[in-house]
Amino acid sequence: MIKFKNKLFSMINESDIGNKYTFKCKIEDIKQTSGPTIFILNDGTSLLKATGFISAGERAFPDINKKDFVETELLIKKRKTKLEGEIVTIKKLTKNETNTLIKKIKQKNKPFQTEFLIETEILNKLKPELLKAAEIIRSAIFENTPILIKHHADCDGYSGAIAIERAIIPLIRKNHNSQKSEFNFYTRSPSMAPFYEYSDVLRDLGNILDVKKKFDKKNPLIILIDLGNIKKNILAIKRLKMYDFKVIVIDHHDPGEKGNIEKIKKLADLYINPFCVGFDSSFVCGMICTELARLINENVKNIEFLPALAGTADKSDKDEFTKYLKISEYSKEFLEKFAICVDFETYYIKYQESRELIEDLFRRNKINHENLINKIYEQVKQKIQETQTAVEKYVEVQKIDDIKFIKIDCEKVSSYGEFPTPSKVVRISHDLFKGKRISIGILQDSIIFRVNEVEKFDVNELVNDLKKQKPYALIEGGGHKFAGTLKFIPVAKKEILK
Amino acid sequence: MIKFKNKLFSMINESDIGNKYTFKCKIEDIKQTSGPTIFILNDGTSLLKATGFISAGERAFPDINKKDFVETELLIKKRKTKLEGEIVTIKKLTKNETNTLIKKIKQKNKPFQTEFLIETEILNKLKPELLKAAEIIRSAIFENTPILIKHHADCDGYSGAIAIERAIIPLIRKNHNSQKSEFNFYTRSPSMAPFYEYSDVLRDLGNILDVKKKFDKKNPLIILIDLGNIKKNILAIKRLKMYDFKVIVIDHHDPGEKGNIEKIKKLADLYINPFCVGFDSSFVCGMICTELARLINENVKNIEFLPALAGTADKSDKDEFTKYLKISEYSKEFLEKFAICVDFETYYIKYQESRELIEDLFRRNKINHENLINKIYEQVKQKIQETQTAVEKYVEVQKIDDIKFIKIDCEKVSSYGEFPTPSKVVRISHDLFKGKRISIGILQDSIIFRVNEVEKFDVNELVNDLKKQKPYALIEGGGHKFAGTLKFIPVAKKEILK
Amino acid sequence: MIKFKNKLFSMINESDIGNKYTFKCKIEDIKQTSGPTIFILNDGTSLLKATGFISAGERAFPDINKKDFVETELLIKKRKTKLEGEIVTIKKLTKNETNTLIKKIKQKNKPFQTEFLIETEILNKLKPELLKAAEIIRSAIFENTPILIKHHADCDGYSGAIAIERAIIPLIRKNHNSQKSEFNFYTRSPSMAPFYEYSDVLRDLGNILDVKKKFDKKNPLIILIDLGNIKKNILAIKRLKMYDFKVIVIDHHDPGEKGNIEKIKKLADLYINPFCVGFDSSFVCGMICTELARLINENVKNIEFLPALAGTADKSDKDEFTKYLKISEYSKEFLEKFAICVDFETYYIKYQESRELIEDLFRRNKINHENLINKIYEQVKQKIQETQTAVEKYVEVQKIDDIKFIKIDCEKVSSYGEFPTPSKVVRISHDLFKGKRISIGILQDSIIFRVNEVEKFDVNELVNDLKKQKPYALIEGGGHKFAGTLKFIPVAKKEILK
Repeated sequence: MIKFKNKLFSMINESDIGNKYTFKCKIEDIKQTSGPTIFILNDGTSLLKATGFISAGERAFPDINKKDFVETELLIKKRKTKLEGEIVTIKKLTKNETNTLIKKIKQKNKPFQTEFLIETEILNKLKPELLKAAEIIRSAIFENTPILIKHHADCDGYSGAIAIERAIIPLIRKNHNSQKSEFNFYTRSPSMAPFYEYSDVLRDLGNILDVKKKFDKKNPLIILIDLGNIKKNILAIKRLKMYDFKVIVIDHHDPGEKGNIEKIKKLADLYINPFCVGFDSSFVCGMICTELARLINENVKNIEFLPALAGTADKSDKDEFTKYLKISEYSKEFLEKFAICVDFETYYIKYQESRELIEDLFRRNKINHENLINKIYEQVKQKIQETQTAVEKYVEVQKIDDIKFIKIDCEKVSSYGEFPTPSKVVRISHDLFKGKRISIGILQDSIIFRVNEVEKFDVNELVNDLKKQKPYALIEGGGHKFAGTLKFIPVAKKEILK
Repeated sequence: MIKFKNKLFSMINESDIGNKYTFKCKIEDIKQTSGPTIFILNDGTSLLKATGFISAGERAFPDINKKDFVETELLIKKRKTKLEGEIVTIKKLTKNETNTLIKKIKQKNKPFQTEFLIETEILNKLKPELLKAAEIIRSAIFENTPILIKHHADCDGYSGAIAIERAIIPLIRKNHNSQKSEFNFYTRSPSMAPFYEYSDVLRDLGNILDVKKKFDKKNPLIILIDLGNIKKNILAIKRLKMYDFKVIVIDHHDPGEKGNIEKIKKLADLYINPFCVGFDSSFVCGMICTELARLINENVKNIEFLPALAGTADKSDKDEFTKYLKISEYSKEFLEKFAICVDFETYYIKYQESRELIEDLFRRNKINHENLINKIYEQVKQKIQETQTAVEKYVEVQKIDDIKFIKIDCEKVSSYGEFPTPSKVVRISHDLFKGKRISIGILQDSIIFRVNEVEKFDVNELVNDLKKQKPYALIEGGGHKFAGTLKFIPVAKKEILK
Repeated sequence: MIKFKNKLFSMINESDIGNKYTFKCKIEDIKQTSGPTIFILNDGTSLLKATGFISAGERAFPDINKKDFVETELLIKKRKTKLEGEIVTIKKLTKNETNTLIKKIKQKNKPFQTEFLIETEILNKLKPELLKAAEIIRSAIFENTPILIKHHADCDGYSGAIAIERAIIPLIRKNHNSQKSEFNFYTRSPSMAPFYEYSDVLRDLGNILDVKKKFDKKNPLIILIDLGNIKKNILAIKRLKMYDFKVIVIDHHDPGEKGNIEKIKKLADLYINPFCVGFDSSFVCGMICTELARLINENVKNIEFLPALAGTADKSDKDEFTKYLKISEYSKEFLEKFAICVDFETYYIKYQESRELIEDLFRRNKINHENLINKIYEQVKQKIQETQTAVEKYVEVQKIDDIKFIKIDCEKVSSYGEFPTPSKVVRISHDLFKGKRISIGILQDSIIFRVNEVEKFDVNELVNDLKKQKPYALIEGGGHKFAGTLKFIPVAKKEILK
């Protein structure tokens, strides 16, 4: 047996079996089995599993610990279908050698300097943050860190999450060379509320800690996408930070009161929002995340249409949307259909990941997808038409000056638990009319607004005014200027309706 | 080692270990392990697992694919407790040989021509469909296809599902010769709604696709039992058919509007309903499925009482019921008790399968069962008596001509989430009176009817009339002529109550 | 190889590998694998796994059955990291030898005669029952019986459960010498209702029976903690007893009507409640269970503060509380904060076990814990202040004679699904005032009471009076004299409010 030098993990192949090589690498993880001790090594090009053995179940090389930087001589072997190393010798690196290696590993985690899909000032301004996000995510992938994406369960939230998912999964597969790894190291979890609910935080945290205990896993990286309510997210992140989890927040909603941005930036590892660089919510999460996905994985596929889809769903109307629409190679009409089908399906899918089902819904391949959307759309159209009949009958309209006030009782015109959702009901009701108008949808503990051509109206301002006037009503909410929600405790309903 | 011919999979036993035989068979499945390649073979008498090996993790015989028909020489070996084959040679069959084998396999899947439990014109007319259903189900079992039964969570739905379950499970056990196979290849899932809810469809679909990806399974066969609302089921089946799943529908509810039968027959692989052959809902799913179970498995045991139980629960009163009652060897009184205990228990079991618990509830063995039912009945009786006290106090009766109109507010006379259900409350209320009467139970978004001796009244007609008069109320529902439900959006409640 | 005698399971170590010893022991369990037959042996000092082998998958020593008492010669071997025996010979013991062994095993299961943490007449009177409970629980641990703790999801219920958990888990770990055993043989399940809900009973039962079938487990021991409603628990236990499960009930609520104690004592294997020995609810479950934990495991750690915590949460004010407070080494102020943080967190954790998260919340180690509580408390304080603002605005006060009647509509002053709970809202409302007062919180189907300085008022009496006056309102409830709940069917609300 000959000893070689200057081999890299990424270069090892079947012809190396039986040979010994020396590597400089980081110990990413150590696991004790009932047989040998398993060391997960990272030399800045790839991960490699290596075994150390003294006696069955006994910890080999007890002076070598997680996060150490070492030089190790490995005998390359094949175990089942995979190549791995058997540790012949191992010793810690000097400080100098360690620093060199850290640089090399950091280099590997660096994102690709790909060009953005479109040219826009927004992206230029967001670029430093996007590069940082890509580096954090790449590090997680290459260092065996589980990733959890928590995203709003609407079309924009899904589009953003899917873009990143399509960048991440191929890298996880490649890094671990195992089919199940994409289920072990990546999870996507839709949130029905437009924020990270505290009960979700505790459920996720509970699961993560129990799994960590049982299977000796690393702390995860958590990515929040399109979860607008910054105040509630701050509560959530505070709880996660009691366990030192890394958290990236990607959003395009108005962060509201001054100081909110500073607060969340201080808490989270990264906060990306067009509002931070002087733009507004029309640059949606589907757009931000698609560009980010390309920085994470230069070979990411099948995501170019997501910005236009998300923009269509969230009524983007700026230049950026037009450019993405062109890239998508779809018509606006088809994207409208696509978006409402996503709303419809994901409304019933609720909090489930259903990875394969969602992969089909978001166009696993283009050929069958149009057919799928058209079939689903048949049902959606019918549901919406039915609701329209009910809305037409029960909507109340009043004209004050030249503004139409349109009122609909959302919970009473659709069956409980059925599509369309209250906010869709308001949109249906709103679209029955034209011109200057304010639509309000009434629920037990909230009011949904949608406004057209009434310049002086601003949902966020209304929310803030009422908050000050009636602190006892525990008012919350907001959204965009012309569309948003006002939440309160039920007892205050009458008073607020006035 | 000698080579034999004319051996069949079903004949192989321990004495064959070490011998080689040649078989003609179909490749039902291929799985790549980290060691050999696994081929699941079917020679029309049984399944056999066979291994092919080139090198660890490499696909053996890459030109042989799923669904191919082959001639293969196997060396019989024992692995752990099970016999399997090691592939010595394998080659595809000619077209002629293939056709012969297809016939042979089809023969194995053919149901047994058992006589029905009772003589009735209904069964004679349903016979061709029942034979077809039995064949599809047998094929699924013998060809490694997972089976999912989705059934209404009432006594009739359960009875039908249990009858088929008791035919299927022993065949799966025998076919796979493994204890866990009955959990891997068969699932039963109760539906609280009387239709396949869209959210259930998507959850089931999501799970099936993810499991399929992870464990490389076949598409399932789905059997819907006693899920009356044909329109909603059509939506469900349409979604399943986007993935080409096989679907059998067994029901005894009035299919409603003309054209519904044609629609569902075109979509589903099979639709069995006494209404299709000119009969009515008194021939319940428990009866249909018990007869079907006997065609699936000639040795099926412990199901003869299910038709009478289901008939008792669903108020069957025709000749067929009398015959099944006799076969059941139970008194009507005991079956009443049995049925209400099933209602009570399954109300709290909700959507869970709880296979072992249900097996006991539906009489795993006769000796302990009466005792179990009597103990449960004590509690049921008390609950019903309590509700009766409340109903007596709060029921409102009005006499118009010679008909009593009996009104009860269902949601207000029982505690939320507690037995009895609204429809049971209406029955309790209805049973307090005698003679010509119409009982209505009022809920937030529906009205439940129960009628006696009022010839001109028909729930289905009422539903249809109101639908036409008030399309904006999004009216749904129906049921049987003298008992059924009218569903609407809450805003329309006042208007409809008039 | 030499044969030794007089070795005990608890004494076996690595140096015994390769030796043969003879043991007298009980067969606790037998499992057939695809290889050897596994026998779980118990010699009264520890469990030992032993293998018997005839041929692969064939049952070895078929005349030896579960629960037999045997003499067996074992060859000590190491399999993976664990020592086990290979059965050389095995034969049943004579009656005499069996009896001696039974005594020895019973001895091992006997609790430790530790002194109680505090001196009080209550504990002296409860001692015989506590010793019995400790013995039943120790037997379960040492005989491979899974344990399920079902406890009220409030601070007292949690405190009691955690005390016992901290006694049980180290013994399970030691007994099984395996990391996963503490997940396989112990489960804790919080109940949001203050009783064992029937749907929970059936879900637990369904899971237990399915797992038992799949993995051949023993029937579990079920421990109910702080689940006050004795009538509902009786229904639950009756159902469990149809399967002969062992059930221990630990509670401190008023058992209500005469005869209830007899009924539950007849059903359950043990019923422990200070009321049984003439005391009241101020000796809370956290106190009872902490003392019990010390009898189960003399080395139990980190539980001394639990009685004071639970007492603080449940407003204990007797001598016993003062003593426990001193032992806790905490200030009353900190415990108030701790308790409300537990309420807050567990409100959102709901029915989930989240063992690791709860371990941190209940002070895994003292150093980080105060910090954790302080951080959580920041959020709790804010929530409570917000609710206070709403309560101040919407509370209605009326003075009749010298008593203030304070009314608040609980469901309307806090957002659905958000902390604080209705009973916390009533407390907030109650604490706004001073002096003689009766607070009532109104919900859809219940009224919550909290009373100060009104001697003649007793919630339990009120409930009983109304029950008799209005049997049709299906009134339930009760609690403590000055704080409790009155439940009824919604239709009776108006009448009862009068």
